Amino acid sequence: MRRFVANRAKHLIGSLQRPLSSQSYFLSSTSAADPSTMSSSSATVTSETINPKVLNCEYAVRGEIVTHAQHLQQELQEKPGSHPFKEILYCNIGNPQSLGQQPITYFREVLALCDHPTILDRSETQGLFSADAIERAWQILDQIPGRATGAYSHSQGIKGLRDAIAAGIAARDGFPADPNDIFLTDGASPAVHMMMQLLIRSEKDGILCPIPQYPLYSASIALHGGTLVPYYLDEATGWGLEISELKKQLGEAQSKGITVRALVVINPGNPTGQVLAEDNQREIVEFCKREGLVLLADEVYQENVYVAEKKFHSFKKISRSMGYGEKDLSLVSFQSVSKGYYGECGKRGGYMEVTGFGADIREQIYKVASVNLCSNISGQILASLVMNPPKVGDESFESFCAEKDGILSSLARRAKTLEDAFNSLEGVTCNKAEGAMYLFPRLHLPRKAIEAAEAAKTAPDAFYARRLLDATGIVVVPGSGFGQVLGTWHIRCTILPQEDKIPAIVSRLTAFHQSFMAEFRD
Amino acid sequence: MRRFVANRAKHLIGSLQRPLSSQSYFLSSTSAADPSTMSSSSATVTSETINPKVLNCEYAVRGEIVTHAQHLQQELQEKPGSHPFKEILYCNIGNPQSLGQQPITYFREVLALCDHPTILDRSETQGLFSADAIERAWQILDQIPGRATGAYSHSQGIKGLRDAIAAGIAARDGFPADPNDIFLTDGASPAVHMMMQLLIRSEKDGILCPIPQYPLYSASIALHGGTLVPYYLDEATGWGLEISELKKQLGEAQSKGITVRALVVINPGNPTGQVLAEDNQREIVEFCKREGLVLLADEVYQENVYVAEKKFHSFKKISRSMGYGEKDLSLVSFQSVSKGYYGECGKRGGYMEVTGFGADIREQIYKVASVNLCSNISGQILASLVMNPPKVGDESFESFCAEKDGILSSLARRAKTLEDAFNSLEGVTCNKAEGAMYLFPRLHLPRKAIEAAEAAKTAPDAFYARRLLDATGIVVVPGSGFGQVLGTWHIRCTILPQEDKIPAIVSRLTAFHQSFMAEFRD
Repeated sequence: MRRFVANRAKHLIGSLQRPLSSQSYFLSSTSAADPSTMSSSSATVTSETINPKVLNCEYAVRGEIVTHAQHLQQELQEKPGSHPFKEILYCNIGNPQSLGQQPITYFREVLALCDHPTILDRSETQGLFSADAIERAWQILDQIPGRATGAYSHSQGIKGLRDAIAAGIAARDGFPADPNDIFLTDGASPAVHMMMQLLIRSEKDGILCPIPQYPLYSASIALHGGTLVPYYLDEATGWGLEISELKKQLGEAQSKGITVRALVVINPGNPTGQVLAEDNQREIVEFCKREGLVLLADEVYQENVYVAEKKFHSFKKISRSMGYGEKDLSLVSFQSVSKGYYGECGKRGGYMEVTGFGADIREQIYKVASVNLCSNISGQILASLVMNPPKVGDESFESFCAEKDGILSSLARRAKTLEDAFNSLEGVTCNKAEGAMYLFPRLHLPRKAIEAAEAAKTAPDAFYARRLLDATGIVVVPGSGFGQVLGTWHIRCTILPQEDKIPAIVSRLTAFHQSFMAEFRD
Repeated sequence: MRRFVANRAKHLIGSLQRPLSSQSYFLSSTSAADPSTMSSSSATVTSETINPKVLNCEYAVRGEIVTHAQHLQQELQEKPGSHPFKEILYCNIGNPQSLGQQPITYFREVLALCDHPTILDRSETQGLFSADAIERAWQILDQIPGRATGAYSHSQGIKGLRDAIAAGIAARDGFPADPNDIFLTDGASPAVHMMMQLLIRSEKDGILCPIPQYPLYSASIALHGGTLVPYYLDEATGWGLEISELKKQLGEAQSKGITVRALVVINPGNPTGQVLAEDNQREIVEFCKREGLVLLADEVYQENVYVAEKKFHSFKKISRSMGYGEKDLSLVSFQSVSKGYYGECGKRGGYMEVTGFGADIREQIYKVASVNLCSNISGQILASLVMNPPKVGDESFESFCAEKDGILSSLARRAKTLEDAFNSLEGVTCNKAEGAMYLFPRLHLPRKAIEAAEAAKTAPDAFYARRLLDATGIVVVPGSGFGQVLGTWHIRCTILPQEDKIPAIVSRLTAFHQSFMAEFRD
């Protein structure tokens, strides 16, 4: 692996922004315009005349392979039996409820009651909803001016909900949290964009990002015209994050005239699944403090830890426990209702906790938030619920715990089963998913497979993923979408299919892989 | 007025991006960092080192005056009687439910049922919800793969909901609409940002915007680093949109080396309330076609028309009725669930209908949408409902119509009462609100008032708005936040306070104005 190190930084900065294959994203329809007929009007808006930052942006999680999967799904519906599988299994994206995970009952009860509060007083409601969900709905409504869940809120989110979230953070960390530091957002993605927009002035501004990384970061940096400065997680040590690597990449970037503004850390890791050790987190905090970098902490998988020996610690807790306060470190923590045991992706709830910035900069962040008025209120409510779930003594507490524990323990089992399955395949090595929702196995592909991919003008991992989809209906994302050490190939596969489907998935995957290797073995 | 014309374009391009007074946006808290103590860490992120496009962006609808109003509200809560009014009346923003407008029952029933579908089969539900809401919830759930309202959807939105929206557009216009042209978004704002991001490459790219304009446009153009090319609506002819003015401003911008990419039209107008005549719309379409401009049609107030002699026509209907199709005109229509009679601002639902772009450009729009995964599902559902409300024969139809007509006829009465009230004030002239939710009266301020404003280092209309707030608790937005002809002064005031409060508002406004004029009359 080490022979690739010398050139890898250069390669990755380039390849992350300009992948091998051009991708077809738009779903065409019969009545959509035929490009060949578009010459007269599209002359004014063409690929040559749009913002090149948009052209440079790539987002593989919903790229070519997913578009192809959607076509296959349509063919299966129209002609059952037309493919050697009965359904498409979307393992490309952390979208638990799309694969059958049921929502947490208590959360949905509260949301429904807040959507239609006029039923709160009706006797039938007592029979349909748990008593504590009714009580929580009343509490939430009382925190909203005029009980108006249909009104724009404060641009940072409803104050009472931010109070609840701050209380949840304080209970989690053992250090106080300020509701005025919380910015509620439509999922975590807009929060990441806001910070990139704030920090990036030109391509001379760099953001240190892990490789492999969740491609929101490369996409957002590209859209805002900055430079992704990669640091490599070490696959050999379970995707370890080494400070020496951070230093090296920071120095290399600086020597090229890049001003590095921030360090992105994803913990638990996506797509890698590693959970950082506390000592390692302290080193990262020291590094950011010393180098004057903003620490952008993607902590959306904070509830998803599957191994007894690891525990999630927020970077705010770590920095406060080191004695560092507001003036020592600029730190932004991102959280989302899409992940955890709740997996409420469609609700688009999330927040960022913004600490260690001057009042003038926070005014600027508030201003940008205010241009979009506010995030959706259901998502805001849900964010307050996930940070303050039912407590001992609440009517829903037992059933809530049963649902939560059921999901988390099943995820842990699924992670282990799939990890073992990948590791049992010829030429595949797979680190443990200590947390998050993904496995990122490495494919040691035969030379003939790599040549076949080159002949097909595609990356070897994309070639493998496409073959896997065509043979089994299983959708994964090629590692090239996340970044990887030059010459290594991976796929990202979620651990989210429901447990009763896992044995069949393992069989299909194994049979496919054996046949693939038989076809291409050197 | 005409003596200002020569310099006004130059002035406005500047003033829109750099208003007179610097604004304080962030709500401070006791534990928030004191900027004086922030020197060590904030040294890395300062006003001098953040993205200057963020600094240039302004959004007056939630600016200084609103922050001050929030302080007054807190003071009123802590010390009742501390101000000469009992409550703050937020007339600064089109946020109907914050002022007591009730949501449409049917819409909320469907949303609640989709949030918590497990109650759909329960007998108590029949007593709590209307039969057609239950049926619609089933229909919607059947359109969502796995009935998973908690899953990310297709990045353009759930296909079945886009089908419903396209059918609603087709019924409205009498011309077909394609569900693949619909992009569902979290309110209309992110859709506007997406188009600006696509079209703007540098400050040499210009967007023609009405003056006065809803400041989302100036903010979004500033954030994306483009140039706002103003065209002036003619106050003397009821905020008329003259093609000669468009031509003149286009020519002037081009002579300065600006490539004008698009024309923004807000119809019905915000903040001006005018509804365009059909002939005028045809001229606008011809102008865009001839000049190769993308027509960005803000049609979020399409349901808010209050005068019998005017009717809303979408630009798509107008262009199709002129025989123009996909290849003749690039047209984007923005719609939102925040406006109309429903006013569901907090749900953050909306869509854009994108027509007349080549497949390659639509792929790019899809890609940018996919980076944020999808808009929130409740907002998506609501967008499909507002474009397909209950129909004759549905159980809810009569009560739905009563709620809808009650809101719209009340808004029409409120618009007329407030218009008359403004016109009865000394030195105030106010055009009719034919549509939308605002009045934009012109203040002919005495010389002494203007001098007092200058002495207070604030714009005269901001000075008036601040005095009005301090005396009455009524929050309006100074015209300078929207742009206005140099040397003219306005305020924007919504027509949204509930009808029973209007007489008191008129009395307070009148008494304040008389006292203001008495103080400053020349």
